[in-house]
Amino acid sequence: MFTEYDIIVVGAGHAGCEAAHTVATMGSKVLLVTMNMNTIAQMSCNPAMGGVAKGQIVREVDALGGMSGIITDKTMIQFRMLNRSKGPAMWSPRAQSDRMRFSEEWRTALENNLNIDFWQDMVSGIIVENDKVCGVKTSLGIEIRAKAVILTNGTFLNGIIHIGEKQLGGGRAAEKSAKGITEQLVQLGFESGRMKTGTPPRVDGRSLDYTKMEEQFGDEKPSKFSYTDTEPLTKQRSCYITYTNSEVHEILKTGFEKSPMFQGRIQGLGPRYCPSIEDKINRFADKDRHQIFVEPEGWSTVEIYVNGFSSSLPEEVQYQALRKIVGFENAKMFRPGYAIEYDFFPPTQLNHTLETKLIENLYFAGQINGTTGYEEAACQGLMAGINAHQKTRGKEALILKRSEAYIGVLIDDLVNKGTDEPYRMFTSRAEHRILLRQDNADIRLTKLGYDLGLADESRLRKVEEKIKAAAEITTYLNKKSMEPEIVNTTLLALESAPISEKAKATNLLRRPNIELEYLAKADQELAAFLEQYDQEYCEQASIGIKYESYIEKENQQAARMKELENYVIKERLDYNKIPALSHEARQKLLKINPETIGQASRISGVSPADISILMVYLGK
Amino acid sequence: MFTEYDIIVVGAGHAGCEAAHTVATMGSKVLLVTMNMNTIAQMSCNPAMGGVAKGQIVREVDALGGMSGIITDKTMIQFRMLNRSKGPAMWSPRAQSDRMRFSEEWRTALENNLNIDFWQDMVSGIIVENDKVCGVKTSLGIEIRAKAVILTNGTFLNGIIHIGEKQLGGGRAAEKSAKGITEQLVQLGFESGRMKTGTPPRVDGRSLDYTKMEEQFGDEKPSKFSYTDTEPLTKQRSCYITYTNSEVHEILKTGFEKSPMFQGRIQGLGPRYCPSIEDKINRFADKDRHQIFVEPEGWSTVEIYVNGFSSSLPEEVQYQALRKIVGFENAKMFRPGYAIEYDFFPPTQLNHTLETKLIENLYFAGQINGTTGYEEAACQGLMAGINAHQKTRGKEALILKRSEAYIGVLIDDLVNKGTDEPYRMFTSRAEHRILLRQDNADIRLTKLGYDLGLADESRLRKVEEKIKAAAEITTYLNKKSMEPEIVNTTLLALESAPISEKAKATNLLRRPNIELEYLAKADQELAAFLEQYDQEYCEQASIGIKYESYIEKENQQAARMKELENYVIKERLDYNKIPALSHEARQKLLKINPETIGQASRISGVSPADISILMVYLGK
Ligand SMILES: Cc1cc2nc3c(=O)[nH]c(=O)nc-3n(C[C@H](O)[C@H](O)[C@H](O)COP(=O)(O)OP(=O)(O)OC[C@H]3O[C@@H](n4cnc5c(N)ncnc54)[C@H](O)[C@@H]3O)c2cc1C
Ligand SMILES: Cc1cc2nc3c(=O)[nH]c(=O)nc-3n(C[C@H](O)[C@H](O)[C@H](O)COP(=O)(O)OP(=O)(O)OC[C@H]3O[C@@H](n4cnc5c(N)ncnc54)[C@H](O)[C@@H]3O)c2cc1C
Repeated sequence: MFTEYDIIVVGAGHAGCEAAHTVATMGSKVLLVTMNMNTIAQMSCNPAMGGVAKGQIVREVDALGGMSGIITDKTMIQFRMLNRSKGPAMWSPRAQSDRMRFSEEWRTALENNLNIDFWQDMVSGIIVENDKVCGVKTSLGIEIRAKAVILTNGTFLNGIIHIGEKQLGGGRAAEKSAKGITEQLVQLGFESGRMKTGTPPRVDGRSLDYTKMEEQFGDEKPSKFSYTDTEPLTKQRSCYITYTNSEVHEILKTGFEKSPMFQGRIQGLGPRYCPSIEDKINRFADKDRHQIFVEPEGWSTVEIYVNGFSSSLPEEVQYQALRKIVGFENAKMFRPGYAIEYDFFPPTQLNHTLETKLIENLYFAGQINGTTGYEEAACQGLMAGINAHQKTRGKEALILKRSEAYIGVLIDDLVNKGTDEPYRMFTSRAEHRILLRQDNADIRLTKLGYDLGLADESRLRKVEEKIKAAAEITTYLNKKSMEPEIVNTTLLALESAPISEKAKATNLLRRPNIELEYLAKADQELAAFLEQYDQEYCEQASIGIKYESYIEKENQQAARMKELENYVIKERLDYNKIPALSHEARQKLLKINPETIGQASRISGVSPADISILMVYLGK
Repeated sequence: MFTEYDIIVVGAGHAGCEAAHTVATMGSKVLLVTMNMNTIAQMSCNPAMGGVAKGQIVREVDALGGMSGIITDKTMIQFRMLNRSKGPAMWSPRAQSDRMRFSEEWRTALENNLNIDFWQDMVSGIIVENDKVCGVKTSLGIEIRAKAVILTNGTFLNGIIHIGEKQLGGGRAAEKSAKGITEQLVQLGFESGRMKTGTPPRVDGRSLDYTKMEEQFGDEKPSKFSYTDTEPLTKQRSCYITYTNSEVHEILKTGFEKSPMFQGRIQGLGPRYCPSIEDKINRFADKDRHQIFVEPEGWSTVEIYVNGFSSSLPEEVQYQALRKIVGFENAKMFRPGYAIEYDFFPPTQLNHTLETKLIENLYFAGQINGTTGYEEAACQGLMAGINAHQKTRGKEALILKRSEAYIGVLIDDLVNKGTDEPYRMFTSRAEHRILLRQDNADIRLTKLGYDLGLADESRLRKVEEKIKAAAEITTYLNKKSMEPEIVNTTLLALESAPISEKAKATNLLRRPNIELEYLAKADQELAAFLEQYDQEYCEQASIGIKYESYIEKENQQAARMKELENYVIKERLDYNKIPALSHEARQKLLKINPETIGQASRISGVSPADISILMVYLGK
C-alpha cells in the first residue's frame, strides 16, 4: 500500500509539521503519519507564539526556511514586541494566534508541498533492522518503510490527564493517548522518564467584565515573525490583565488535599518556569497576587484562555477561585484546566543532529525530548528534518553553534546536559545573547538554510539586500556631521547633553536615549537619506552602531570560547577557592572534576556565568 | 459550579446544535455539554447537506427558524438543485460544504446566542427522580441539574470501529466513544439495539487524474437553502464522477473473508440505502460498475471524499481496489474507510414530541433514535428542542402532521413503526409529497416557527410577501391573454401545439414543457410585469398553477386521511382477498388485525400505497 519513503514523520504537532515541511522542501519524499488529520498543528495550550527567547527561536526557524513564522503571521490576532525598552538582545516578538486558523494554515502549507503524503493512523512501533530504523508499524497493523524516522509524539505517549482526584487516559483533553512506542524503545535499550505539564481553564468571554481589567493593546505599528513578505496586521484584538488575590488563593488552597501534584499522584516533573497557580501560591506564599492575562482564542470565538491560571485542582475549586478574580465574578467555564503526564526520553541519548545514539536514522524532536513549548518543538523538528535529510543523502550534518543561534543553545543543552524538568528556552541560557537577536536571525542563518535547499533564493536576496543597506546606512552615519543648531533642541528634549560643535551622527546615536528616528526628525537631509530604506534596515544599522562594542566583545568571547573548548584544566582545581562560583556549580565541578573547559561547560548546573568566572580564575 | 439550567443538551452534533439553538432562541437557558469543543457540528461522513428528500428537510428546518440551512449557505462550495427535470415535488437542493467552515460557523452561531452555555465533558449518565429527569452526571463526576435533558449522542454510545479484522473503540475515527449512558438507560427499562454505518476512504486530491473523469459543475444560477438573506454562491468547486469496474470488484472480493460485515463480526444493521461498496457488489452481482462521486472537502484542502465507496474491508484491499478506478491509478489514501457500530434506542419508546415514554422530560434526538444523516438528525434536534421548551414552560407541544412536513413523516414513522435499520428519509415515505415541496416549506411552516418564538419576524414578513406576490402573479396570469402571433413561435420551438386564438397565460403554463420564463421571453408586457417580482415568487406562482390539480387532490386526500384516521375496520377483513396489497403488508395486517385505518397505517411494512388500496377496498 505504501512504497518506501525517504523519511517518515510521526505526529503532526509543531515539531512534526516543521520536520515534514523541512525534509519535503529539501527534496525528500515524506509520509506524515498522525492520529487525527483534523488536529494538525493543534496548539495544545495557549494560542500564542513567541515571547522572550521563544520569539527569537521562531525568527531563527523562519530564517532557516521553516514555516512557524509564516503561519503565525498569517493567523495572528495580536502582535507585541516584548522588552522594547530594554537592549535589542531582549526584544522578543510575541503573537496571539487564532487557534483554528493556525491549524488550518499549517495544514494548507503542508498540503501545498507535493513531497508530503499524509496518513491518519497511530504509530505503535518502529521497525529496526541491524540497529537501524527502517520504518514504522501502525495500530492498523500496517508496516511502512523509510530510510529514516522522526518521532515527534509530543505529550501523547502513555498520556494521563489529571483533574483533582480524577485520572483519564489521553494525549490532550478529549484525545486518545498513544501506546506501544515507549515500551518498544525501552526494550531496545532507551531510557524513558515521565514529565508533566498543565493548562488553565478556558472560560466564556461573554461572562467576563472587561471594564474591570487593564486592556492590553497590540503594538501600534505591529511587526511580524517572518522575514518574507507576509502582511503585518491592520487590525488586532486586545488582551486584558487582571490579578488573583488572597481570596482566590484561599479557595485554591481548599483543593490542595485533592491536588494530584501535592498528593504525589503525579510523578513527572513539571515546568518550573510555567508553574500551575497552586504551585505559585505554594512556592511564593508571601505574594498576595499573581498576574492573569486574559487572552482571546481567535478572531471571532468567545473562548478565552486564562493565562497564568494553569491548574490541576478539582474543577469545582478552579471555578470557585476563578470567580473571585476581578472581572471574573460571573465567569463561566468552558473546559477545566488539567495536568498531563507523559513519557519522554532523556535527550542525552541523542547526538547533536537529534539522531538517537542507539538506533541509526531514528530522530527524536519536540516534547518527547523533554522540552516544553511550541517554539522549542518547532525548531527541533526543523533541525531533525535537516539532519535526517542530509544523513539519508550522505551529506553533511548541520549543527548550529551556541554562538550562532538559540537553536544551537537548545540542542547543545539537551544533548549535553539533559534535563530533569521540561526544558524551556530563556535568554539567560545563551552566553552570547547579544549576538542572537531577533533582528539578525536572517543574517545569521538564512545563508545556511539556502545552502541546504531549504530557504529559497528570494530569502537569500532579501538578506543580502538588508546587509548591504545596513552597511550603506552605517557608512553614511559614520560620515554624517550634525550641526549643534539643528540637533540640540532634540537632544535637550531627550535629556541628553547638547553639543557645542559638529558631531558625527554615529556618536550621537551611541548615546543611551537617542534613536535614529529622533535624529532624522531633527535633520532633514538625514531624513531624506533614510527614506530610501526600509525601517528594518535602518534599525539594523542603528543596532549595529549603538551596540557595536558589546557585539564585538561578544564575538571575541565566542571565538575564545571555541578555542577554550579544548583547553585542558591541568591540575585538580580546588573549586572551593573560587567563591564567585554558584553553589551548585561548585558542587558539581568538585564531583565531576572535568578535564576541559568544554566538558565543564556541559555539566548540568554549571552556567555560562560560572564558566566565565572559571576562565578568569584560570587567567584566560 | 452550575446553577440549574432549563435544558441540558448532550452532544454537539447536528441534532445537538439545532436543539441548543432552538431552545435558547425560544428563551430557555441551556447548557450544551459535549466531549470536545473543537468538534462542534463535525460532519462525520461526507461534507454535504441536502439531497433528495433530505434537502426538503433542511428547508423545513430553516423555515421553522433552525440554523442548518443558514450554516450550509455560509459554508457551501457547490450547490445543485437535484431532479430539476422532474416535477417540483422532486426538486431537492444539495450542497457540498467546507467541512472546517461548517463546524466553525455552527460554533460561532451558538456562541452568539447568549442563552447557550458550553461545557466540555463526557456525560456518563442522567439524574432521575420520580421517573423524571432532572440533570446529568459527567465523567468528571459533576452533577448538573436541569428541567429537561435532550440526548443527542450520535454514533458515540459504545462505538466500535471496524476496519477489516481490526476493531477499535471510538465514536468516530480518532475520537473516543462514550460509555455509561446505555447501561443506565437499559437499567431504567429502555430497550437498546445496535446499528452500524460506514464511511469511505479519504484520498489525496493531488494524486487523482481529473482529466479522466466527468466534471460535475455546480448549478449555473445556484440557489440556496435558507429563506433568509444568505448570499448565494458566486464561485464554486466542481465535483467529479467516475466508476468502479469489474477489476475493482474482483479486488474487493479478495477482502470479503476479512469483512467484518460478511463474517458476522458486526451485529448491527446498516443503512440499506447507503450501502458499502462491498454490499453493492454482493447484492447487485450483475452490475459491472458503480458510480463514484469525487467530492472535495473544502475550499482549499486537497482532501477528497470518495462518495459511493464506503467500506470496512481491510485498508490494503480498499487501497488496491481504489487504484483500479479510472482516474485513481496513482491515488494516495489519507484515511481508510471504516464501519462503526453503536447503540441506539428503538424510537417506538418515544412520544411524538420525542420525549421518552419512560422518563418525563427526557428527549432523544438524532442518530440514537435509529436514523442516519445530518438532516434527519438536525430536524429531530429542532423538534426535541421545541417540545422540551414548550413542556418545561407548560405550553402546547408541536407535532407536525405527515401532510405538513417531511419532519412530520419522519417522526411519525419512527415513533409508530420504529426501525430495524438506520432510517433515512425518501420522498416515497411521504404520502403527500406534492404538498411537501422544497419551494413552499416557508409557507407551510414559518408561521408555526414564528408563533413559537423561534422564527423571527423578518422571516414571517418574507413569507407573507411571498404569498401575496404569488397570489398577485397568479391573478395576473389568470387574466392575461396571449396572442397567437406573439407566443406561437415559442410554443413551436418547445414542441408544443400552437394556438389559433387568444389563450390565457395560465392555460399555456399548464402545458408540460412550458415555463413562465419562456412565455415572458415571448411577451414583453408579461415580462415587464414579472420583473417587479423576485424569481422565487414567480416560481411559486408558476408551480401553483402548473400543479394546481395535483395539489388540490393531495390536499383533499390529506383531509380524508385525517378523517379516516379513526375509521374503524369493523369486521375481520380477509386481507388475502386484496391482491393489490404488498406481500409484507398482507402478512402484517393478517397478523395484527388493526382496529382502525389509523392503526393499520402505522404498522411497519404497511405503506401509504397499501393504505390507499385498503381505502378503495373499503369503499372510502
Ligand atoms: C495540557 C498541555 C499543557 C501545556 N502547557 C504548556 C505551557 O504551559 N507552556 C508551554 O510552553 N508548553 C505547554 N505545552 C506544551 C506544548 O503544547 C508542546 O510543547 C508542543 O505542542 C509540543 O509540540 P510537539 O510537536 O512536540 O507535540 P504535540 O504538539 O503534542 O503534537 C504531537 C502530535 O503527534 C501525534 N501523535 C502522537 N503520538 C502519535 C502516534 N503514536 N502516532 C501518530 N501520531 C501521534 C499527535 O496526534 C499530535 O498531532 C502544553 C501541552 C499540553 C498538552
Ligand atoms: C463513520 C460514519 C459514517 C456515516 N455515514 C453516513 C452515511 O453514509 N450517510 C448518512 O446519511 N449518514 C452517515 N453517518 C451519520 C451521520 O454522521 C449522522 O447521522 C449524524 O452526524 C448524526 O448526528 P447526531 O447529532 O445525531 O450525532 P453526531 O453527529 O454523531 O454527534 C454526536 C455528538 O455528541 C457528542 N457526544 C456523544 N456522546 C456524548 C456524551 N456522552 N457526552 C458528551 N457529548 C457526547 C459527540 O462528541 C458529538 O459531538 C455516518 C456517521 C459516521 C460516524
